[in-house]
Amino acid sequence: MAKELFLCYLAKKKAKLSEKDKFIKMRTSNFFLTTLKEAPAESEIISHQLMLRAGLIRQVAAGIYNWLPLGYRVLKKVENIVRMEMDIAGALETLLPAVQPSELWKESGRWDDYGPELLRFPDRHQRDFCLGPTHEEVITNLIQSEIQSYRQLPLNLYQIQTKFRDEIRPRFGVMRSREFIMKDAYSFDIDADGMQISYQKMYDAYVRIFENLGLEAKAVEADSGTIGGNFSHEFHVMANTGEDAIAVCNSCDYAANVEKVELAPILKKRSRPLKDLNKVHTPNQKSIDDLCSFLKIKSNKALKTLIVHGTEDKLVAIAIRGDHELNPIKAEKLKQISKPLKFANYDEIEKLTNTPPGSIGPVNLQIPLVADHDAALLTDFVCGANEADYHLTGVNWGRDLKEPDAYDLRQAADGDPCPNEKDKTLLIRRGIEVGHVFQLGSKYSKALNATFLNNKGVSQSFQMGCYGIGITRIIAAAIEQNHDENGIIWPSPLAPFQVCIVPIGYTKSSRVREYTENLYNNLLEVNIETLLEDRNERPGVIFSEMDLIGIPHRIVVSERGLKNGMVEYRNRRTGESTDYSSEEIIDVLKALRAMP
Amino acid sequence: MAKELFLCYLAKKKAKLSEKDKFIKMRTSNFFLTTLKEAPAESEIISHQLMLRAGLIRQVAAGIYNWLPLGYRVLKKVENIVRMEMDIAGALETLLPAVQPSELWKESGRWDDYGPELLRFPDRHQRDFCLGPTHEEVITNLIQSEIQSYRQLPLNLYQIQTKFRDEIRPRFGVMRSREFIMKDAYSFDIDADGMQISYQKMYDAYVRIFENLGLEAKAVEADSGTIGGNFSHEFHVMANTGEDAIAVCNSCDYAANVEKVELAPILKKRSRPLKDLNKVHTPNQKSIDDLCSFLKIKSNKALKTLIVHGTEDKLVAIAIRGDHELNPIKAEKLKQISKPLKFANYDEIEKLTNTPPGSIGPVNLQIPLVADHDAALLTDFVCGANEADYHLTGVNWGRDLKEPDAYDLRQAADGDPCPNEKDKTLLIRRGIEVGHVFQLGSKYSKALNATFLNNKGVSQSFQMGCYGIGITRIIAAAIEQNHDENGIIWPSPLAPFQVCIVPIGYTKSSRVREYTENLYNNLLEVNIETLLEDRNERPGVIFSEMDLIGIPHRIVVSERGLKNGMVEYRNRRTGESTDYSSEEIIDVLKALRAMP
Repeated sequence: MAKELFLCYLAKKKAKLSEKDKFIKMRTSNFFLTTLKEAPAESEIISHQLMLRAGLIRQVAAGIYNWLPLGYRVLKKVENIVRMEMDIAGALETLLPAVQPSELWKESGRWDDYGPELLRFPDRHQRDFCLGPTHEEVITNLIQSEIQSYRQLPLNLYQIQTKFRDEIRPRFGVMRSREFIMKDAYSFDIDADGMQISYQKMYDAYVRIFENLGLEAKAVEADSGTIGGNFSHEFHVMANTGEDAIAVCNSCDYAANVEKVELAPILKKRSRPLKDLNKVHTPNQKSIDDLCSFLKIKSNKALKTLIVHGTEDKLVAIAIRGDHELNPIKAEKLKQISKPLKFANYDEIEKLTNTPPGSIGPVNLQIPLVADHDAALLTDFVCGANEADYHLTGVNWGRDLKEPDAYDLRQAADGDPCPNEKDKTLLIRRGIEVGHVFQLGSKYSKALNATFLNNKGVSQSFQMGCYGIGITRIIAAAIEQNHDENGIIWPSPLAPFQVCIVPIGYTKSSRVREYTENLYNNLLEVNIETLLEDRNERPGVIFSEMDLIGIPHRIVVSERGLKNGMVEYRNRRTGESTDYSSEEIIDVLKALRAMP
Repeated sequence: MAKELFLCYLAKKKAKLSEKDKFIKMRTSNFFLTTLKEAPAESEIISHQLMLRAGLIRQVAAGIYNWLPLGYRVLKKVENIVRMEMDIAGALETLLPAVQPSELWKESGRWDDYGPELLRFPDRHQRDFCLGPTHEEVITNLIQSEIQSYRQLPLNLYQIQTKFRDEIRPRFGVMRSREFIMKDAYSFDIDADGMQISYQKMYDAYVRIFENLGLEAKAVEADSGTIGGNFSHEFHVMANTGEDAIAVCNSCDYAANVEKVELAPILKKRSRPLKDLNKVHTPNQKSIDDLCSFLKIKSNKALKTLIVHGTEDKLVAIAIRGDHELNPIKAEKLKQISKPLKFANYDEIEKLTNTPPGSIGPVNLQIPLVADHDAALLTDFVCGANEADYHLTGVNWGRDLKEPDAYDLRQAADGDPCPNEKDKTLLIRRGIEVGHVFQLGSKYSKALNATFLNNKGVSQSFQMGCYGIGITRIIAAAIEQNHDENGIIWPSPLAPFQVCIVPIGYTKSSRVREYTENLYNNLLEVNIETLLEDRNERPGVIFSEMDLIGIPHRIVVSERGLKNGMVEYRNRRTGESTDYSSEEIIDVLKALRAMP
């Protein structure tokens, strides 16, 4: 098998690099370029702004987009890179329907559980259908009818397909759209060990996919959320503008969604109280930051008290250190707290304490209280006095109020210890989730009664995994990671074109035109996707447009340059320009293409 | 441009032939083959039966299918061949959304006109959307906002995309499914001449597409139907089981849907009446065929009288010669007849004539009558007597009833004169419509107010064309054209694999195994997609399965053969087996691959 794999890989690498198939439309006079000077008002984030400005997409309705030819070239590149690695990993490509019958979703229980993001409608015969946001039900049903024996396992089927999720507030362009393209794969194994192997293959394929895409990405331990199952990793494209906070160890491989980082009970002892309890007037100090600067203390000496709903229709208080954030997923796991976590509203808090929310504290609070480990370690701390515009200072557990029940309840923060190596610290970085791999176990196979006969002839449920990548989302994430004030800077594997040739005086100078056409044809012959600028536009306008659409390599051909036997090369990412001999330039570009 | 085009074409030809990308999954032990001995009861036509039996598709709901890995390989081949020719023709690939806002369909008027095949639903905010069965509205809206000047024209945008049409009675598998994949292209031109050129480019591309697919197809003149516009051609894959009748000239290039063939008024004179009018008893002779055999006359001596609704709530009679069929599209074009054509029901006919439908005739019928040219030429003919179980014989126009108003009202039939060369005759063949190209003119651009500025600065409507190919339907049509009692016979460009190697005793004989592995690797290295049968199944079972899934070339490797230095080659289409030297066989297969 090794040789086949290698042959296949080589062929694919070559296919990816060549992409000869789009040659004919590489003149700007034929190609549908439609850029905008200003980003439309509705675009809030940079990738959305640049995708609109560069003419990659156009909105049709909220969260629904047209992909224009320039954007579609990028989309196909992402698809092909994902497809290649899925094939190498032994997954088989299929295509499942977008429109799915309600019966399957009722069997799995998700017809009721999924909520209004599942777009449902009756067909003309009043039978209920939905637009698939995911395909666990359809694929499990297929496998249930097609696979009878353990001999047919393992199996991994994938598709690259258009999905729909009726987001309440679609925004950020294709980052959170309603119609989107996903690669979703589903593995079926005999047992948990097999599932682990299938999972690892997909994990490894995902790592290679992001390498091949030329993106900085991280696999992080994640919560499985509503998909279910035991174990999952998210894949994030790193970007300062990312929605998710990711804790990364500065020394080992550890990376996890901050929601998922387990913070061990801290073994340190509390220091001895030094201060007396005191009530202070703190007019209009609503936020922790305001309060701390008013009292001239650090926020790690203050205590936040959050009021949430408990399991038996009671309220529960959660104490968190002032510089920390509550982790809702951890809180939900406590038996005394309702799931999903629900904060008490203004009226409920006022009714409980006769105080508006800004001045709540744990002293004399008549409801159960849980504290985060770090909050429980505080000495001489500050908290709300349960009286409007007053706080307590010098508060101490065990002296001024009873010792709290302490749990791991907060998000990880910069400087927390790494769970793998206690003496190393975590750094919080931002990421954009573009992939998620799950070990589902038998959740769906049991619900849909999908079984096979094992080697003893006994009926058994499939062990499943599911593996998603947001194809369209990757493009937005790539732009968040790779742009500057002038526009997109495509990583080479995603660039719609590798090179643009901008001739100055193409229509006037036959020398310029002949050289340009010759260079253009030579680049095509060595499989370099080249865009030839043959419109009669001012160079300044062209330069801005080529910067905006992010072509990695630009060649300017001019009469003056050719007289000296030179052309100008400019690198989009570095912004550096270099003059090269007009004869050497092809070799330069060939060498650049070969670079990672 | 010529050189680029040629380079591009060569590269694509090569890409099409190589298809190296799927090598890894070419062992039956890994590949998800799932064939059926019997076709499920719901499958009525051979392509549907074979697609289910060969495991290309599986039904999810009525008219909604999963594409399994074997079927998906075929689907991708069709897509890639279509994509290649669209690119060569200068069309730019885009991707438009499946979910479309109602506003655009209201602007074009089709929200009301389209009928229940347009699947409509509100989103979570109660805004109306539909699942796109076609994209004229979306693309015209896009062009309206992006194209301002004639300088940006012509433009042709295409997509390969999943569409939905809520058929009242989905059937015949992917031949008439609800969810299906189409390639749809839309051209935008300055004027009618430009549109003609764009149309011709697409027409030519379609001709090449079907050549490249290895299918016998015909371009036929067609009616534009509800899409609108002036002029259109259908592309049919020819098959005896085809739904559509196509008139083909036995001498020139003429081909047209029978609905569309214009039959000129025949200049021949009627012959002189020889018989007297006579009423004869014809008990229980309901059909023309029954009647003619009862009366011992040819059906071309009988007259059929059809009663339809007229424009002003009156009934109208249509007289057609007994061996001819009414063409509803021609009838609808008469001002006295309602559109769409509506036949009178049993009660209406009985009320009019006091006679059940089997015995209606034009003599003494108290409603307007129109006759087909050929019916108007009859002499001494037979028709219903407007009295149950009686017919008239020896009837003559002008003598027994008044001269009829004569029109071209019938379908073309075998032996009709060719409209291009009157002395040549037409042959009626069967076809399956898989493509349709339309000259739309300004129908949609006017409705959606899509204009550009011409070279005089004057605002003008785009001249549009639209061009569809049913990607999934082509696969069913290909099977209707290419199958035998043992299964599918793929044309080489569509085959999921070119070659299958069936080793006899793969697990037992190391000689067989070594030769097989070697042959397998060598075939992969010369880019021949090969399926290696490595399961431990009886040869008879394997041979049947490989015949069913239609692999063009089969190699059987056996201990006995190898002892004589031979392997057995069998051609799926001809069924002929030949022994070849075990060393020569690669060259044989390479040569076969190069064949058309």
